[in-house]
Amino acid sequence: MNNGGISFTSDIRVRYAETDGMRVVYHGNYLTYFEEARTNLFRTIGVVYSEIEKTGVYLVVLEAHVKYRRSAVYDDVLHVKAMLAELSSMKLTVNYEITRNNDSEILITGQTVHAFTNALSGRPIRPPKNYLELIEKYF
Amino acid sequence: MNNGGISFTSDIRVRYAETDGMRVVYHGNYLTYFEEARTNLFRTIGVVYSEIEKTGVYLVVLEAHVKYRRSAVYDDVLHVKAMLAELSSMKLTVNYEITRNNDSEILITGQTVHAFTNALSGRPIRPPKNYLELIEKYF
Amino acid sequence: MNNGGISFTSDIRVRYAETDGMRVVYHGNYLTYFEEARTNLFRTIGVVYSEIEKTGVYLVVLEAHVKYRRSAVYDDVLHVKAMLAELSSMKLTVNYEITRNNDSEILITGQTVHAFTNALSGRPIRPPKNYLELIEKYF
Amino acid sequence: MNNGGISFTSDIRVRYAETDGMRVVYHGNYLTYFEEARTNLFRTIGVVYSEIEKTGVYLVVLEAHVKYRRSAVYDDVLHVKAMLAELSSMKLTVNYEITRNNDSEILITGQTVHAFTNALSGRPIRPPKNYLELIEKYF
Repeated sequence: MNNGGISFTSDIRVRYAETDGMRVVYHGNYLTYFEEARTNLFRTIGVVYSEIEKTGVYLVVLEAHVKYRRSAVYDDVLHVKAMLAELSSMKLTVNYEITRNNDSEILITGQTVHAFTNALSGRPIRPPKNYLELIEKYF
Repeated sequence: MNNGGISFTSDIRVRYAETDGMRVVYHGNYLTYFEEARTNLFRTIGVVYSEIEKTGVYLVVLEAHVKYRRSAVYDDVLHVKAMLAELSSMKLTVNYEITRNNDSEILITGQTVHAFTNALSGRPIRPPKNYLELIEKYF
Repeated sequence: MNNGGISFTSDIRVRYAETDGMRVVYHGNYLTYFEEARTNLFRTIGVVYSEIEKTGVYLVVLEAHVKYRRSAVYDDVLHVKAMLAELSSMKLTVNYEITRNNDSEILITGQTVHAFTNALSGRPIRPPKNYLELIEKYF
Repeated sequence: MNNGGISFTSDIRVRYAETDGMRVVYHGNYLTYFEEARTNLFRTIGVVYSEIEKTGVYLVVLEAHVKYRRSAVYDDVLHVKAMLAELSSMKLTVNYEITRNNDSEILITGQTVHAFTNALSGRPIRPPKNYLELIEKYF
Protein backbone atom coordinates (compact mmCIF):
# COMPACT_ATOMS: atom_id res chain seq x y z
CA MET A 1 0.00 0.00 0.00
CA ASN A 2 1.50 3.25 -1.18
CA ASN A 3 0.62 6.26 0.91
CA GLY A 4 3.17 8.23 -1.02
CA GLY A 5 0.85 10.79 -2.50
CA ILE A 6 -0.14 13.65 -0.28
CA SER A 7 -1.87 13.71 3.05
CA PHE A 8 -3.91 16.16 5.06
CA THR A 9 -4.99 15.89 8.67
CA SER A 10 -8.35 17.26 9.81
CA ASP A 11 -9.17 17.88 13.44
CA ILE A 12 -12.64 16.64 14.29
CA ARG A 13 -14.20 16.87 17.73
CA VAL A 14 -16.55 14.00 18.59
CA ARG A 15 -20.17 15.10 19.02
CA TYR A 16 -22.54 13.47 21.49
CA ALA A 17 -24.78 12.54 18.55
CA GLU A 18 -21.93 10.44 17.15
CA THR A 19 -21.50 8.28 20.24
CA ASP A 20 -23.52 5.19 21.04
CA GLY A 21 -24.63 3.25 24.09
CA MET A 22 -21.10 1.91 24.62
CA ARG A 23 -20.09 5.54 25.20
CA VAL A 24 -17.79 5.42 22.16
CA VAL A 25 -18.14 6.66 18.60
CA TYR A 26 -20.59 4.42 16.71
CA HIS A 27 -18.46 2.40 14.31
CA GLY A 28 -20.34 3.56 11.21
CA ASN A 29 -19.64 7.21 11.97
CA TYR A 30 -15.94 6.91 11.19
CA LEU A 31 -16.95 6.84 7.53
CA THR A 32 -18.36 10.32 8.04
CA TYR A 33 -15.08 11.44 9.62
CA PHE A 34 -13.25 9.92 6.64
CA GLU A 35 -15.56 11.89 4.34
CA GLU A 36 -14.74 15.17 6.07
CA ALA A 37 -11.01 14.40 6.02
CA ARG A 38 -11.09 13.35 2.35
CA THR A 39 -12.96 16.51 1.36
CA ASN A 40 -10.44 18.65 3.19
CA LEU A 41 -7.55 16.76 1.56
CA PHE A 42 -9.03 17.45 -1.87
CA ARG A 43 -9.65 21.10 -0.99
CA THR A 44 -5.98 21.41 -0.05
CA ILE A 45 -4.88 20.43 -3.54
CA GLY A 46 -7.44 22.67 -5.21
CA VAL A 47 -10.17 20.12 -5.80
CA VAL A 48 -13.40 21.42 -4.26
CA TYR A 49 -15.88 18.60 -4.31
CA SER A 50 -18.95 20.83 -4.19
CA GLU A 51 -17.65 22.43 -7.40
CA ILE A 52 -17.16 19.03 -9.05
CA GLU A 53 -20.83 18.21 -8.52
CA LYS A 54 -21.84 21.44 -10.24
CA THR A 55 -20.17 20.14 -13.41
CA GLY A 56 -22.45 17.09 -13.38
CA VAL A 57 -19.85 14.73 -11.96
CA TYR A 58 -20.09 12.64 -8.79
CA LEU A 59 -17.25 11.02 -6.91
CA VAL A 60 -18.92 7.87 -5.62
CA VAL A 61 -17.72 5.30 -3.10
CA LEU A 62 -17.00 1.80 -4.44
CA GLU A 63 -15.51 0.29 -1.29
CA ALA A 64 -14.98 1.20 2.33
CA HIS A 65 -12.84 -0.61 4.87
CA VAL A 66 -12.32 0.22 8.53
CA LYS A 67 -10.22 -1.40 11.26
CA TYR A 68 -11.07 -0.48 14.83
CA ARG A 69 -8.17 -0.75 17.26
CA ARG A 70 -9.22 1.65 20.01
CA SER A 71 -12.37 3.62 20.63
CA ALA A 72 -12.80 7.36 20.47
CA VAL A 73 -15.09 8.93 23.04
CA TYR A 74 -17.25 12.04 23.35
CA ASP A 75 -15.40 15.35 23.10
CA ASP A 76 -12.17 13.74 21.87
CA VAL A 77 -10.37 15.89 19.35
CA LEU A 78 -9.43 13.40 16.65
CA HIS A 79 -6.72 13.89 14.06
CA VAL A 80 -8.06 12.26 10.92
CA LYS A 81 -5.28 11.87 8.38
CA ALA A 82 -6.39 11.26 4.79
CA MET A 83 -3.74 10.10 2.32
CA LEU A 84 -4.05 9.93 -1.47
CA ALA A 85 -2.93 6.35 -2.01
CA GLU A 86 -3.62 5.21 -5.53
CA LEU A 87 -4.86 6.65 -8.78
CA SER A 88 -5.72 4.64 -11.86
CA SER A 89 -7.65 5.68 -14.92
CA MET A 90 -10.90 4.79 -13.21
CA LYS A 91 -10.30 4.58 -9.48
CA LEU A 92 -9.01 6.71 -6.68
CA THR A 93 -7.98 5.23 -3.33
CA VAL A 94 -7.67 7.15 -0.08
CA ASN A 95 -6.21 5.74 3.15
CA TYR A 96 -6.95 7.02 6.65
CA GLU A 97 -5.45 6.97 10.11
CA ILE A 98 -7.10 8.41 13.18
CA THR A 99 -5.24 9.41 16.32
CA ARG A 100 -6.38 11.26 19.38
CA ASN A 101 -5.11 14.67 20.37
CA ASN A 102 -1.73 14.52 22.14
CA ASP A 103 -1.36 10.80 21.56
CA SER A 104 0.41 9.03 18.72
CA GLU A 105 -1.44 5.73 19.12
CA ILE A 106 -3.47 4.89 16.06
CA LEU A 107 -7.12 4.27 16.96
CA ILE A 108 -8.61 3.60 13.56
CA THR A 109 -7.32 2.85 10.08
CA GLY A 110 -9.33 2.71 6.90
CA GLN A 111 -9.52 2.92 3.16
CA THR A 112 -12.09 4.11 0.67
CA VAL A 113 -12.06 3.48 -3.09
CA HIS A 114 -13.83 5.90 -5.39
CA ALA A 115 -14.84 6.38 -8.99
CA PHE A 116 -16.00 9.42 -10.90
CA THR A 117 -19.43 9.01 -12.45
CA ASN A 118 -21.74 10.98 -14.66
CA ALA A 119 -24.29 12.37 -12.20
CA LEU A 120 -27.20 11.83 -14.58
CA SER A 121 -26.44 8.40 -16.01
CA GLY A 122 -24.58 7.01 -13.02
CA ARG A 123 -21.96 5.56 -15.36
CA PRO A 124 -18.27 5.62 -14.47
CA ILE A 125 -16.26 8.23 -16.33
CA ARG A 126 -12.61 9.20 -16.43
CA PRO A 127 -11.78 11.93 -13.93
CA PRO A 128 -12.40 15.38 -15.42
CA LYS A 129 -9.09 16.56 -16.90
CA ASN A 130 -8.66 19.64 -14.72
CA TYR A 131 -9.14 17.63 -11.53
CA LEU A 132 -6.98 14.80 -12.81
CA GLU A 133 -4.09 17.20 -13.35
CA LEU A 134 -4.39 18.53 -9.82
CA ILE A 135 -4.43 15.01 -8.37
CA GLU A 136 -1.73 13.50 -10.61
CA LYS A 137 0.83 15.96 -9.34
CA TYR A 138 1.01 13.93 -6.16
CA PHE A 139 1.84 10.59 -7.75
CA MET B 1 -55.05 21.26 18.89
CA ASN B 2 -57.25 18.92 16.92
CA ASN B 3 -55.95 15.40 16.55
CA GLY B 4 -59.25 14.47 15.05
CA GLY B 5 -57.98 13.57 11.62
CA ILE B 6 -56.55 10.13 11.25
CA SER B 7 -53.69 8.44 12.96
CA PHE B 8 -51.36 5.56 12.25
CA THR B 9 -48.94 3.88 14.61
CA SER B 10 -45.62 2.54 13.36
CA ASP B 11 -43.54 0.08 15.33
CA ILE B 12 -39.87 1.06 15.29
CA ARG B 13 -37.17 -0.89 17.06
CA VAL B 14 -34.31 1.27 18.39
CA ARG B 15 -30.97 0.58 16.68
CA TYR B 16 -27.66 0.80 18.47
CA ALA B 17 -26.63 3.51 16.01
CA GLU B 18 -29.51 5.65 17.27
CA THR B 19 -28.43 5.60 20.92
CA ASP B 20 -25.87 7.92 22.47
CA GLY B 21 -23.43 7.90 25.34
CA MET B 22 -26.28 8.27 27.87
CA ARG B 23 -27.45 4.85 26.63
CA VAL B 24 -30.70 6.36 25.37
CA VAL B 25 -31.93 7.43 21.95
CA TYR B 26 -30.14 10.63 20.88
CA HIS B 27 -32.73 13.38 21.11
CA GLY B 28 -32.37 14.42 17.47
CA ASN B 29 -33.18 10.92 16.23
CA TYR B 30 -36.81 11.14 17.28
CA LEU B 31 -37.31 13.42 14.26
CA THR B 32 -36.27 10.46 12.12
CA TYR B 33 -38.79 8.25 13.90
CA PHE B 34 -41.41 10.94 13.30
CA GLU B 35 -40.46 10.93 9.62
CA GLU B 36 -40.94 7.18 9.34
CA ALA B 37 -44.26 7.36 11.18
CA ARG B 38 -45.49 10.29 9.07
CA THR B 39 -44.57 8.52 5.83
CA ASN B 40 -46.44 5.43 6.95
CA LEU B 41 -49.46 7.52 7.95
CA PHE B 42 -49.53 9.09 4.50
CA ARG B 43 -49.10 5.72 2.83
CA THR B 44 -52.11 4.45 4.75
CA ILE B 45 -54.35 7.08 3.20
CA GLY B 46 -52.94 6.52 -0.27
CA VAL B 47 -50.36 9.30 -0.32
CA VAL B 48 -46.98 7.77 -1.19
CA TYR B 49 -44.37 10.41 -0.58
CA SER B 50 -41.80 8.93 -2.97
CA GLU B 51 -44.44 9.27 -5.70
CA ILE B 52 -45.09 12.92 -4.78
CA GLU B 53 -41.45 13.74 -5.35
CA LYS B 54 -41.59 12.22 -8.82
CA THR B 55 -44.17 14.88 -9.74
CA GLY B 56 -41.71 17.64 -8.89
CA VAL B 57 -43.23 18.43 -5.50
CA TYR B 58 -41.51 18.36 -2.10
CA LEU B 59 -43.17 18.23 1.29
CA VAL B 60 -40.75 20.28 3.37
CA VAL B 61 -40.54 20.80 7.11
CA LEU B 62 -41.27 24.30 8.41
CA GLU B 63 -41.22 23.56 12.13
CA ALA B 64 -40.41 20.70 14.44
CA HIS B 65 -41.16 20.44 18.15
CA VAL B 66 -40.31 17.63 20.54
CA LYS B 67 -40.96 17.14 24.25
CA TYR B 68 -38.93 14.48 25.99
CA ARG B 69 -40.62 12.94 29.03
CA ARG B 70 -38.89 9.56 29.26
CA SER B 71 -36.02 8.02 27.38
CA ALA B 72 -36.17 5.11 24.98
CA VAL B 73 -33.26 2.68 25.05
CA TYR B 74 -31.58 0.25 22.71
CA ASP B 75 -33.78 -2.54 21.36
CA ASP B 76 -37.01 -0.96 22.63
CA VAL B 77 -39.90 -1.49 20.27
CA LEU B 78 -41.49 1.94 20.08
CA HIS B 79 -45.02 2.67 18.99
CA VAL B 80 -44.80 5.95 17.11
CA LYS B 81 -48.28 7.35 16.56
CA ALA B 82 -48.58 10.02 13.87
CA MET B 83 -51.81 12.03 13.76
CA LEU B 84 -52.99 14.35 10.98
CA ALA B 85 -53.74 17.42 13.05
CA GLU B 86 -54.34 20.45 10.86
CA LEU B 87 -54.64 21.26 7.20
CA SER B 88 -54.79 24.74 5.77
CA SER B 89 -54.35 25.89 2.19
CA MET B 90 -50.60 26.06 2.69
CA LYS B 91 -49.68 24.03 5.77
CA LEU B 92 -50.07 20.53 7.09
CA THR B 93 -49.51 19.74 10.76
CA VAL B 94 -48.78 16.29 12.16
CA ASN B 95 -48.67 15.42 15.87
CA TYR B 96 -46.81 12.49 17.39
CA GLU B 97 -46.83 10.37 20.51
CA ILE B 98 -44.31 7.67 21.29
CA THR B 99 -44.94 4.85 23.72
CA ARG B 100 -42.95 1.74 24.45
CA ASN B 101 -44.16 -1.77 23.74
CA ASN B 102 -46.56 -3.06 26.41
CA ASP B 103 -46.62 0.24 28.24
CA SER B 104 -49.11 3.08 27.88
CA GLU B 105 -46.85 5.77 29.33
CA ILE B 106 -46.06 8.45 26.77
CA LEU B 107 -42.31 8.90 26.38
CA ILE B 108 -42.17 11.55 23.71
CA THR B 109 -44.61 13.97 22.10
CA GLY B 110 -43.99 16.14 19.10
CA GLN B 111 -45.29 18.11 16.19
CA THR B 112 -44.06 18.90 12.71
CA VAL B 113 -45.46 21.53 10.35
CA HIS B 114 -45.05 21.09 6.61
CA ALA B 115 -45.59 22.88 3.33
CA PHE B 116 -45.66 21.63 -0.22
CA THR B 117 -43.07 23.30 -2.44
CA ASN B 118 -42.07 23.24 -6.06
CA ALA B 119 -38.95 21.04 -6.04
CA LEU B 120 -37.16 23.20 -8.61
CA SER B 121 -37.99 26.71 -7.40
CA GLY B 122 -38.34 25.91 -3.71
CA ARG B 123 -41.47 28.06 -3.58
CA PRO B 124 -44.49 27.04 -1.54
CA ILE B 125 -47.37 25.72 -3.59
CA ARG B 126 -50.87 24.53 -2.81
CA PRO B 127 -51.02 20.79 -2.20
CA PRO B 128 -51.48 18.91 -5.49
CA LYS B 129 -55.21 18.34 -5.93
CA ASN B 130 -55.16 14.55 -5.93
CA TYR B 131 -53.20 14.44 -2.68
CA LEU B 132 -55.32 17.18 -1.14
CA GLU B 133 -58.47 15.17 -1.78
CA LEU B 134 -57.01 12.12 -0.10
CA ILE B 135 -55.95 14.17 2.93
CA GLU B 136 -59.11 16.31 3.20
CA LYS B 137 -61.26 13.26 3.74
CA TYR B 138 -59.92 13.10 7.25
CA PHE B 139 -60.92 16.60 8.31
CA MET C 1 -37.69 35.75 25.27
CA ASN C 2 -34.53 37.10 26.76
CA ASN C 3 -31.38 36.33 24.85
CA GLY C 4 -29.52 38.64 27.13
CA GLY C 5 -27.16 36.11 28.61
CA ILE C 6 -24.11 35.29 26.62
CA SER C 7 -23.75 33.90 23.14
CA PHE C 8 -21.12 32.03 21.20
CA THR C 9 -21.04 31.31 17.49
CA SER C 10 -19.60 28.06 16.16
CA ASP C 11 -18.62 27.58 12.54
CA ILE C 12 -19.81 24.24 11.24
CA ARG C 13 -19.25 23.02 7.70
CA VAL C 14 -22.05 20.81 6.34
CA ARG C 15 -20.94 17.22 5.64
CA TYR C 16 -22.33 15.14 2.81
CA ALA C 17 -23.57 12.65 5.40
CA GLU C 18 -25.77 15.39 6.87
CA THR C 19 -27.62 16.17 3.63
CA ASP C 20 -30.64 14.28 2.33
CA GLY C 21 -32.26 13.52 -0.98
CA MET C 22 -33.53 17.12 -1.27
CA ARG C 23 -29.83 18.10 -1.40
CA VAL C 24 -30.23 20.09 1.82
CA VAL C 25 -29.35 19.38 5.45
CA TYR C 26 -31.78 16.79 6.85
CA HIS C 27 -34.03 18.70 9.24
CA GLY C 28 -33.19 16.52 12.23
CA ASN C 29 -29.48 17.21 11.90
CA TYR C 30 -29.83 20.82 13.02
CA LEU C 31 -30.29 19.46 16.53
CA THR C 32 -26.78 18.04 16.23
CA TYR C 33 -25.48 21.43 15.11
CA PHE C 34 -27.26 22.99 18.09
CA GLU C 35 -25.55 20.43 20.34
CA GLU C 36 -22.13 21.35 19.02
CA ALA C 37 -22.85 25.07 19.37
CA ARG C 38 -24.24 24.64 22.89
CA THR C 39 -21.23 22.63 24.00
CA ASN C 40 -18.90 25.29 22.65
CA LEU C 41 -20.92 28.03 24.36
CA PHE C 42 -20.59 26.21 27.68
CA ARG C 43 -16.89 25.61 27.11
CA THR C 44 -16.43 29.33 26.57
CA ILE C 45 -17.74 30.13 30.04
CA GLY C 46 -15.71 27.37 31.66
CA VAL C 47 -18.33 24.64 31.72
CA VAL C 48 -16.91 21.56 29.99
CA TYR C 49 -19.76 19.13 29.51
CA SER C 50 -17.56 16.04 29.32
CA GLU C 51 -16.27 17.00 32.78
CA ILE C 52 -19.81 17.38 34.12
CA GLU C 53 -20.62 13.80 33.16
CA LYS C 54 -17.59 12.56 35.06
CA THR C 55 -19.20 13.92 38.24
CA GLY C 56 -22.26 11.72 37.69
CA VAL C 57 -24.43 14.50 36.32
CA TYR C 58 -26.19 14.62 32.95
CA LEU C 59 -27.58 17.66 31.20
CA VAL C 60 -30.60 16.20 29.45
CA VAL C 61 -32.88 17.68 26.83
CA LEU C 62 -36.49 18.34 27.87
CA GLU C 63 -37.66 20.16 24.76
CA ALA C 64 -36.38 21.02 21.32
CA HIS C 65 -37.91 23.44 18.83
CA VAL C 66 -36.70 24.30 15.35
CA LYS C 67 -38.03 26.68 12.69
CA TYR C 68 -36.77 26.18 9.17
CA ARG C 69 -36.75 29.31 7.04
CA ARG C 70 -34.12 28.51 4.44
CA SER C 71 -32.12 25.39 3.71
CA ALA C 72 -28.42 24.88 4.18
CA VAL C 73 -26.64 22.80 1.57
CA TYR C 74 -23.54 20.64 1.35
CA ASP C 75 -20.25 22.38 2.11
CA ASP C 76 -21.94 25.51 3.49
CA VAL C 77 -20.04 27.01 6.39
CA LEU C 78 -22.77 27.73 8.91
CA HIS C 79 -22.52 30.15 11.79
CA VAL C 80 -24.46 28.54 14.59
CA LYS C 81 -25.09 31.06 17.36
CA ALA C 82 -26.05 29.62 20.74
CA MET C 83 -27.44 32.04 23.33
CA LEU C 84 -27.99 31.37 27.03
CA ALA C 85 -31.59 32.48 27.31
CA GLU C 86 -33.10 31.49 30.64
CA LEU C 87 -31.99 29.90 33.87
CA SER C 88 -34.31 28.76 36.63
CA SER C 89 -33.58 26.52 39.57
CA MET C 90 -34.34 23.47 37.46
CA LYS C 91 -34.17 24.46 33.81
CA LEU C 92 -31.74 25.98 31.38
CA THR C 93 -32.89 27.35 28.03
CA VAL C 94 -30.66 27.95 25.03
CA ASN C 95 -31.71 29.73 21.83
CA TYR C 96 -30.09 29.32 18.43
CA GLU C 97 -29.77 31.16 15.14
CA ILE C 98 -28.05 29.79 12.07
CA THR C 99 -26.73 31.94 9.26
CA ARG C 100 -24.59 31.07 6.28
CA ASN C 101 -21.09 32.36 5.76
CA ASN C 102 -21.04 35.92 4.37
CA ASP C 103 -24.79 36.28 4.61
CA SER C 104 -26.83 37.80 7.42
CA GLU C 105 -30.09 36.05 6.50
CA ILE C 106 -31.24 33.74 9.25
CA LEU C 107 -31.79 30.23 7.92
CA ILE C 108 -32.81 28.41 11.07
CA THR C 109 -33.89 29.37 14.58
CA GLY C 110 -34.36 27.08 17.50
CA GLN C 111 -34.54 26.50 21.21
CA THR C 112 -33.63 23.67 23.54
CA VAL C 113 -34.63 23.35 27.19
CA HIS C 114 -32.47 21.32 29.55
CA ALA C 115 -32.37 19.94 33.05
CA PHE C 116 -29.56 18.55 35.13
CA THR C 117 -30.17 14.99 36.28
CA ASN C 118 -28.46 12.43 38.42
CA ALA C 119 -26.85 10.11 35.88
CA LEU C 120 -27.66 6.99 37.89
CA SER C 121 -31.21 7.69 39.04
CA GLY C 122 -32.27 9.84 36.12
CA ARG C 123 -33.91 12.26 38.56
CA PRO C 124 -33.74 16.01 38.05
CA ILE C 125 -31.30 17.78 40.36
CA ARG C 126 -30.31 21.37 40.92
CA PRO C 127 -27.34 22.42 38.80
CA PRO C 128 -24.07 21.58 40.56
CA LYS C 129 -23.01 24.70 42.45
CA ASN C 130 -19.72 25.29 40.67
CA TYR C 131 -21.40 25.15 37.25
CA LEU C 132 -24.31 27.24 38.44
CA GLU C 133 -21.95 30.00 39.51
CA LEU C 134 -20.27 30.03 36.12
CA ILE C 135 -23.62 30.20 34.34
CA GLU C 136 -25.31 32.70 36.67
CA LYS C 137 -22.71 35.31 35.90
CA TYR C 138 -24.40 35.85 32.58
CA PHE C 139 -27.88 36.59 33.92
CA MET D 1 -15.40 -17.34 2.48
CA ASN D 2 -17.73 -19.77 4.18
CA ASN D 3 -21.29 -18.57 4.51
CA GLY D 4 -22.26 -22.01 5.60
CA GLY D 5 -23.54 -21.07 9.02
CA ILE D 6 -27.00 -19.66 9.21
CA SER D 7 -28.50 -16.60 7.62
CA PHE D 8 -31.41 -14.31 8.29
CA THR D 9 -32.83 -11.64 6.02
CA SER D 10 -34.25 -8.41 7.47
CA ASP D 11 -36.49 -6.10 5.50
CA ILE D 12 -35.49 -2.48 5.99
CA ARG D 13 -37.21 0.44 4.32
CA VAL D 14 -34.90 3.36 3.50
CA ARG D 15 -35.73 6.52 5.45
CA TYR D 16 -35.29 10.01 4.04
CA ALA D 17 -32.82 10.73 6.84
CA GLU D 18 -30.60 7.95 5.51
CA THR D 19 -30.26 9.38 2.01
CA ASP D 20 -27.79 12.04 0.96
CA GLY D 21 -27.49 14.75 -1.65
CA MET D 22 -26.90 12.15 -4.39
CA ARG D 23 -30.45 10.95 -3.62
CA VAL D 24 -29.09 7.54 -2.56
CA VAL D 25 -28.39 5.98 0.83
CA TYR D 26 -25.30 7.59 2.37
CA HIS D 27 -22.57 4.96 2.15
CA GLY D 28 -21.90 4.95 5.89
CA ASN D 29 -25.51 4.09 6.69
CA TYR D 30 -25.22 0.56 5.32
CA LEU D 31 -23.28 -0.27 8.48
CA THR D 32 -26.41 0.61 10.42
CA TYR D 33 -28.46 -1.68 8.18
CA PHE D 34 -25.88 -4.41 8.77
CA GLU D 35 -26.24 -3.83 12.52
CA GLU D 36 -30.00 -4.26 12.38
CA ALA D 37 -29.68 -7.40 10.23
CA ARG D 38 -26.97 -8.86 12.48
CA THR D 39 -29.05 -8.24 15.60
CA ASN D 40 -32.04 -9.93 14.02
CA LEU D 41 -29.88 -12.87 12.93
CA PHE D 42 -28.67 -13.31 16.50
CA ARG D 43 -32.19 -12.98 17.86
CA THR D 44 -33.29 -15.76 15.53
CA ILE D 45 -30.84 -18.20 17.10
CA GLY D 46 -31.72 -17.14 20.62
CA VAL D 47 -28.95 -14.62 21.20
CA VAL D 48 -30.53 -11.32 22.25
CA TYR D 49 -27.80 -8.71 22.15
CA SER D 50 -29.49 -6.36 24.63
CA GLU D 51 -29.46 -9.27 27.11
CA ILE D 52 -25.75 -9.89 26.49
CA GLU D 53 -24.94 -6.32 27.50
CA LYS D 54 -26.82 -6.79 30.77
CA THR D 55 -24.29 -9.50 31.68
CA GLY D 56 -21.43 -7.01 31.35
CA VAL D 57 -20.33 -8.20 27.93
CA TYR D 58 -20.04 -6.17 24.74
CA LEU D 59 -19.83 -7.48 21.20
CA VAL D 60 -17.56 -4.91 19.59
CA VAL D 61 -16.67 -4.33 15.95
CA LEU D 62 -13.06 -5.01 14.95
CA GLU D 63 -13.42 -4.58 11.20
CA ALA D 64 -16.04 -3.48 8.70
CA HIS D 65 -15.92 -3.85 4.93
CA VAL D 66 -18.47 -2.72 2.37
CA LYS D 67 -18.60 -2.99 -1.42
CA TYR D 68 -21.06 -0.73 -3.20
CA ARG D 69 -22.30 -2.09 -6.53
CA ARG D 70 -25.61 -0.27 -6.93
CA SER D 71 -27.32 2.42 -4.91
CA ALA D 72 -30.43 2.10 -2.84
CA VAL D 73 -32.83 5.04 -2.86
CA TYR D 74 -35.45 6.52 -0.60
CA ASP D 75 -38.39 4.27 0.24
CA ASP D 76 -36.71 1.14 -1.19
CA VAL D 77 -37.52 -1.95 0.81
CA LEU D 78 -34.14 -3.63 1.17
CA HIS D 79 -33.56 -7.26 1.97
CA VAL D 80 -30.49 -7.30 4.18
CA LYS D 81 -29.18 -10.84 4.50
CA ALA D 82 -26.79 -11.46 7.40
CA MET D 83 -24.84 -14.73 7.37
CA LEU D 84 -22.83 -16.21 10.23
CA ALA D 85 -19.57 -16.82 8.41
CA GLU D 86 -16.77 -17.69 10.81
CA LEU D 87 -16.33 -18.37 14.49
CA SER D 88 -13.01 -18.72 16.23
CA SER D 89 -12.21 -18.68 19.92
CA MET D 90 -11.99 -14.89 19.84
CA LYS D 91 -13.67 -13.63 16.68
CA LEU D 92 -17.01 -13.81 14.99
CA THR D 93 -17.45 -12.87 11.33
CA VAL D 94 -20.73 -11.94 9.68
CA ASN D 95 -21.23 -11.44 5.93
CA TYR D 96 -23.97 -9.39 4.33
CA GLU D 97 -25.76 -9.06 1.02
CA ILE D 98 -28.35 -6.43 0.24
CA THR D 99 -30.92 -6.75 -2.51
CA ARG D 100 -33.93 -4.63 -3.34
CA ASN D 101 -37.49 -5.83 -3.08
CA ASN D 102 -38.54 -7.93 -6.12
CA ASP D 103 -35.07 -7.89 -7.62
CA SER D 104 -32.31 -10.45 -7.23
CA GLU D 105 -29.46 -8.11 -8.17
CA ILE D 106 -27.05 -7.65 -5.30
CA LEU D 107 -26.61 -3.96 -4.48
CA ILE D 108 -24.22 -4.14 -1.56
CA THR D 109 -21.99 -6.78 0.03
CA GLY D 110 -20.14 -6.49 3.28
CA GLN D 111 -18.47 -8.12 6.22
CA THR D 112 -18.03 -7.25 9.87
CA VAL D 113 -15.66 -8.92 12.32
CA HIS D 114 -16.47 -8.88 16.02
CA ALA D 115 -15.02 -9.78 19.39
CA PHE D 116 -16.62 -10.18 22.78
CA THR D 117 -15.17 -7.85 25.40
CA ASN D 118 -15.57 -7.19 29.08
CA ALA D 119 -17.72 -4.08 29.17
CA LEU D 120 -15.82 -2.58 32.09
CA SER D 121 -12.22 -3.35 31.15
CA GLY D 122 -12.65 -3.31 27.40
CA ARG D 123 -10.50 -6.45 27.16
CA PRO D 124 -11.36 -9.25 24.73
CA ILE D 125 -12.91 -12.29 26.35
CA ARG D 126 -14.06 -15.67 25.10
CA PRO D 127 -17.71 -15.69 24.13
CA PRO D 128 -19.92 -16.43 27.14
CA LYS D 129 -20.56 -20.19 27.14
CA ASN D 130 -24.33 -20.05 26.78
CA TYR D 131 -24.08 -17.77 23.74
CA LEU D 132 -21.24 -19.79 22.29
CA GLU D 133 -23.34 -22.94 22.41
CA LEU D 134 -26.19 -21.25 20.59
CA ILE D 135 -23.83 -19.95 17.89
CA GLU D 136 -21.70 -23.10 17.51
CA LYS D 137 -24.70 -25.14 16.48
CA TYR D 138 -24.48 -23.46 13.10
CA PHE D 139 -20.90 -24.41 12.32
